[in-house]
Amino acid sequence: MNLREHTYYLLEPGDGTGRIIAFSIVILIFLNVLALIFETVEPIYRLNRSAFEAFENFSLVVFFIEYLLRLWSCTTNPRYAHPVKGRLHFFFSFFGLIDLLAILPFFLPAVGIDLRFVRTVRLLRIFRIVKLVRYSRALRLLGKVVMDRKEELLSIFFVLLTLLVVSSSLMYFVEHDVQPEVFPSIPSTMWWGIVTLTTVGYGDAFPITALGQTIAAIIAVLGIGMFALPAGILGAGFTEELERMRVSGDVDEPAQCPHCGKHI
Amino acid sequence: MNLREHTYYLLEPGDGTGRIIAFSIVILIFLNVLALIFETVEPIYRLNRSAFEAFENFSLVVFFIEYLLRLWSCTTNPRYAHPVKGRLHFFFSFFGLIDLLAILPFFLPAVGIDLRFVRTVRLLRIFRIVKLVRYSRALRLLGKVVMDRKEELLSIFFVLLTLLVVSSSLMYFVEHDVQPEVFPSIPSTMWWGIVTLTTVGYGDAFPITALGQTIAAIIAVLGIGMFALPAGILGAGFTEELERMRVSGDVDEPAQCPHCGKHI
Amino acid sequence: MNLREHTYYLLEPGDGTGRIIAFSIVILIFLNVLALIFETVEPIYRLNRSAFEAFENFSLVVFFIEYLLRLWSCTTNPRYAHPVKGRLHFFFSFFGLIDLLAILPFFLPAVGIDLRFVRTVRLLRIFRIVKLVRYSRALRLLGKVVMDRKEELLSIFFVLLTLLVVSSSLMYFVEHDVQPEVFPSIPSTMWWGIVTLTTVGYGDAFPITALGQTIAAIIAVLGIGMFALPAGILGAGFTEELERMRVSGDVDEPAQCPHCGKHI
Amino acid sequence: MNLREHTYYLLEPGDGTGRIIAFSIVILIFLNVLALIFETVEPIYRLNRSAFEAFENFSLVVFFIEYLLRLWSCTTNPRYAHPVKGRLHFFFSFFGLIDLLAILPFFLPAVGIDLRFVRTVRLLRIFRIVKLVRYSRALRLLGKVVMDRKEELLSIFFVLLTLLVVSSSLMYFVEHDVQPEVFPSIPSTMWWGIVTLTTVGYGDAFPITALGQTIAAIIAVLGIGMFALPAGILGAGFTEELERMRVSGDVDEPAQCPHCGKHI
Repeated sequence: MNLREHTYYLLEPGDGTGRIIAFSIVILIFLNVLALIFETVEPIYRLNRSAFEAFENFSLVVFFIEYLLRLWSCTTNPRYAHPVKGRLHFFFSFFGLIDLLAILPFFLPAVGIDLRFVRTVRLLRIFRIVKLVRYSRALRLLGKVVMDRKEELLSIFFVLLTLLVVSSSLMYFVEHDVQPEVFPSIPSTMWWGIVTLTTVGYGDAFPITALGQTIAAIIAVLGIGMFALPAGILGAGFTEELERMRVSGDVDEPAQCPHCGKHI
Repeated sequence: MNLREHTYYLLEPGDGTGRIIAFSIVILIFLNVLALIFETVEPIYRLNRSAFEAFENFSLVVFFIEYLLRLWSCTTNPRYAHPVKGRLHFFFSFFGLIDLLAILPFFLPAVGIDLRFVRTVRLLRIFRIVKLVRYSRALRLLGKVVMDRKEELLSIFFVLLTLLVVSSSLMYFVEHDVQPEVFPSIPSTMWWGIVTLTTVGYGDAFPITALGQTIAAIIAVLGIGMFALPAGILGAGFTEELERMRVSGDVDEPAQCPHCGKHI
Repeated sequence: MNLREHTYYLLEPGDGTGRIIAFSIVILIFLNVLALIFETVEPIYRLNRSAFEAFENFSLVVFFIEYLLRLWSCTTNPRYAHPVKGRLHFFFSFFGLIDLLAILPFFLPAVGIDLRFVRTVRLLRIFRIVKLVRYSRALRLLGKVVMDRKEELLSIFFVLLTLLVVSSSLMYFVEHDVQPEVFPSIPSTMWWGIVTLTTVGYGDAFPITALGQTIAAIIAVLGIGMFALPAGILGAGFTEELERMRVSGDVDEPAQCPHCGKHI
Repeated sequence: MNLREHTYYLLEPGDGTGRIIAFSIVILIFLNVLALIFETVEPIYRLNRSAFEAFENFSLVVFFIEYLLRLWSCTTNPRYAHPVKGRLHFFFSFFGLIDLLAILPFFLPAVGIDLRFVRTVRLLRIFRIVKLVRYSRALRLLGKVVMDRKEELLSIFFVLLTLLVVSSSLMYFVEHDVQPEVFPSIPSTMWWGIVTLTTVGYGDAFPITALGQTIAAIIAVLGIGMFALPAGILGAGFTEELERMRVSGDVDEPAQCPHCGKHI
């Protein structure tokens, strides 16, 4: 096993040293998320500015090295075997792009980006949390469920969008004259539609005419269940997979039927 | 196959040219929905007034021609075979009426309707979105589910109405004296009832007396599940049909049992 | 069959004349509910005061006669066979008390009750809606479900009460000092608890301290499902019974297993 | 059977005298909860101050004696058999600590604690409600369900936390500039996240920019189901255990399969 292969296996969450490295990266990601969160708390940031900056620089160096090593060693994986095409393939893979986006804010200031833009760039660091997917079974499951139910979810989203457009148009035409600042246009009224149909109900927008309230009542009773569908499908899929995993022991292994022991 | 039969098959979502025509109509409907939505955004409308009007006129002509062709060629369909009775039958069918309502705003100004009424007429264009049902599997499914569960839904709606009337009457008698402007009458209090029992909770109306809050608490804990029923039934039916369709491949084909392969 | 037996069968929802009488009573109840609702709408009541009063007097006479006839003829029912004990038994039965409460406002003014009390007495007319249970399959089902799941519901209510007391006490001790007028005492804070745990969220009371918000977040995530239980049980039981009824055809008949045809 | 063994069995909820003692303790706990609740109602407390204090002292003495007797007699239980180690084991057991926390406010004033601290100490009395778990089947079930589903719940909590951090960070970066006092930092924005994803929707914080509302809409539709998962798991587990208990008759006994009668 040459150095490149060694590097590859060290970066995969395996046993021994690989495990320690994986664990260290997970800890570093967690600390990065904490830093991202607490940097936005003014008094904390003002007092620890240099500490935050030092930690950010340290993280960037580590994630940059990790990225380069992954890009270099990925050819060990049969999927990315070709020295050029394989590396390009990895570059544009889900995890390849996430790893890149996690270090992008590092390159941008060097290019001479506008200072006002910097804060928005800081947001890109949120992609570092997605790096966790490589290490967290639960997050990997969630991603798998979204992929598995893609077709169903798209079908339902289309129905939801139709319901939302119809509801919001009706509400706009009924309430616009009475509350022009609350329902100024159909796109704005769609915010009311989402807030009502998900039953969040902030109370920033609601009908006040008798007709508007009657329409809203009918929409609410009929539509609420439809808007609960995508979330319900994700939820059901998630617990199902969690259950399946108890039997097969692994996310990526095919499941066994709990009755007959056959692979499903 | 004569010209009328040719026209009939071209307007059905089939293969070849029929597919292209169906696709074009779907695109036109989508653009109409977008126009309906963005016309209500004042700055967008002011700058593109003539474009909106030109597009509206174009759509009307297309939908009008489509409607006439459908009315003329519908006799090819065995259901509407009779030259007069069949066409009348199509005229009063679900899709016949939807197609008519989609072009009605075109005729009304010609009749010399009051200008204030015009904006309300624009709302009629929302029926164009219902034309999509002909082409969208998901929307057709939803309609099917509503029809299939009609009896159950009606039963539950009666129970919900009873719960709503009882809750709102109680709340009115308890809170009217303390908040006469929030609970002015039982019909107005029913708005509170709907908003509470669907758990939307805008916050525009809520009890403030201890007795009112106690009653509201009991109503909420007991009633919420009942109001989730119609939505739940629609949701369950929808995902069930979606599942069924995976097996049979088509909305309108009888389903096969996934176990024995028999048609259900 | 003597006159008393004839009367008994005429008042039961059966065939022929009994059906017509049942239908008339149901219509009268519906009109009474509408009257109760629209009497509270000031402008409608002012213009139709005498009509409302005439209708109320008419209804009272009809319900009074119905009650007397039921009380007289109930001995035909084997359950109430004894001329004195049976009638007392009917008097204190569920429907007997409901029938009495539906006409009670008639007797009270005669006794010389305070006028201020009259409006509250009007509320008693809401019991007339409960008379519908005799005729509505759906309402009878709901009552049956509540009775069947009594034990489960009580168990859960005890848990909910405990959760509510613990949540509200915690919130009171954390937020009382900061918002003494929003969380003035634990009983008042329980209103916040109910509104949050049922996810209604009116927005009249919510924590503003970091600690209060953290506790509220944990309570919300854990407690919401528990508060959805009683409603879920009622809902599930209701649709189950509705399904069962499709097979057996009647609410009060024992159900048949859809597989083997045996009575369950 | 010596005195210590006698005492042990008297304090367990059994038959005869043990039952009466258990019942008395349950009543005392209920009265304590009522006292805790109504002490916070200013007018009630002012008028009955000495009664509340007398009752508190009486309760403390009873719970103190109960605790000492339990600590002394616990060695009868084979789990705590060793005279020293067993008693220490009981001292640090769940119920041992709960019993101690239920009397702790008694000792603290004696130590000479700051008066301002006293009110917070009163909160500790809420642990007395947890003493009920020993006697209430429903509460014991709930505890069992939480323990049984620990692994699943932790998995989901991790996913929820990730969703919450990502949602709140996005919302902070989008809305902070427009509403700096509503979304001052990411930790504060997480309150918005919880309130939205649980669909409580108080209305104290919501996006007002078009981009913020669009992101919130997507988050709401996708995330709501995930946040309903832990509550759903607890709820499902609870009703399942309740069902299981109907068959086996006891919380702590193994369940029998309702079909084959075998112990599961």
